Amino acid sequence: MLRLAFLLILFVTMPQQERVRSYGTGNEGVVSRSGPDYNGTVQSDGPNYTADGQMKMPERYREWIFLTSGLDMSYDHAAAMVGHSSFGNVFVNPSAYKAFEKTGTWPDKTILVLEFRGAEGASSINKQGKTESQELTGVEVHVKDAKLDGGWGFFEFDGDAPAKVVKRPSSCYQCHENHAAVDTTFVQFYPTLLGLAKAKGALSPAYLKEIGSAGTTK
Amino acid sequence: MLRLAFLLILFVTMPQQERVRSYGTGNEGVVSRSGPDYNGTVQSDGPNYTADGQMKMPERYREWIFLTSGLDMSYDHAAAMVGHSSFGNVFVNPSAYKAFEKTGTWPDKTILVLEFRGAEGASSINKQGKTESQELTGVEVHVKDAKLDGGWGFFEFDGDAPAKVVKRPSSCYQCHENHAAVDTTFVQFYPTLLGLAKAKGALSPAYLKEIGSAGTTK
Repeated sequence: MLRLAFLLILFVTMPQQERVRSYGTGNEGVVSRSGPDYNGTVQSDGPNYTADGQMKMPERYREWIFLTSGLDMSYDHAAAMVGHSSFGNVFVNPSAYKAFEKTGTWPDKTILVLEFRGAEGASSINKQGKTESQELTGVEVHVKDAKLDGGWGFFEFDGDAPAKVVKRPSSCYQCHENHAAVDTTFVQFYPTLLGLAKAKGALSPAYLKEIGSAGTTK
Repeated sequence: MLRLAFLLILFVTMPQQERVRSYGTGNEGVVSRSGPDYNGTVQSDGPNYTADGQMKMPERYREWIFLTSGLDMSYDHAAAMVGHSSFGNVFVNPSAYKAFEKTGTWPDKTILVLEFRGAEGASSINKQGKTESQELTGVEVHVKDAKLDGGWGFFEFDGDAPAKVVKRPSSCYQCHENHAAVDTTFVQFYPTLLGLAKAKGALSPAYLKEIGSAGTTK
């Protein structure tokens, strides 16, 4: 739980060697991306749950809208990566993205998926820098759903199996509520969305206080 | 030209401080993603050219399919970043992605967009690691189009203005032809596509020779 909180707070990529690496590629499940049509009709890319309330792994999330990638993010100046380095890629379901463009904030049924992939060094003709590994090392999800306690829930997936919600109170919820730029989400790290949120006046009081000025987007 | 070649070869992120930073966010141009519908109908996400053959900046490419991100990639062990660090995000138009899923290779009218963003250190509550900057520092495009000399063309955009094709011969074309995993594209760095290409038998002879075994995907 503590580790999950850290991961979700800031996409911290702590050593993940002990994690089960049985994730798919994010491309399985359906043959074509025929659900959301981006034309304003009813979207079908919201969260799905099992009968006992666990969230199912979002299908083909890797074909959703990419928001950003981070490398080895940490809330701690002194955090050690212990030889492991990871990219964290963030995707959002298209219906939520479309709503955000209009409003600067997230609608109900928003799903933010954070997937981790190893950051590899020299491979093929890349001799320096980092590239993303084929292997997924983690998938974590932040969902806005009025059915969930507090309106938002975190889910940490272990392979493709459904995941239970992280119960409140938890440091992950606290940190998102205290530091995130928009509606408990870290839009300050989503380069194409921060300006939209600012323009719509959707930046959180906590974030505005943190940056010290309502007119600064950093 | 030389610098372009290096950039395109391996997403090398050389110092870009002198570049014009007048790019949009990739979200401009049209109000909604209403063109491609992912249902097998005719797609409208192919390349557009001016009357004199320059390529127009692809609209809303950032809502296309994300393939990977890299950090400070270089073909050169000794390359110095000179204080600059960049993410390179790669997107492909949805119609090409859909075709790749079926065939393991790219159809005509494929567009691969490589956008560069600064890799920022500590900001907000991220104290370590790297996050992507709001500012775009470069947009480069690789297009498969039978109308182009050799069937594929590179375009380096300077802001949102149309870009001329990089003429052959050029080291960028040579390196892609000599080292890229699929049809002169660096699919070895696209974690969800390399396995598909291998399964479809679409890996290039040059790449298979480079990795030393037809059965290895690395």
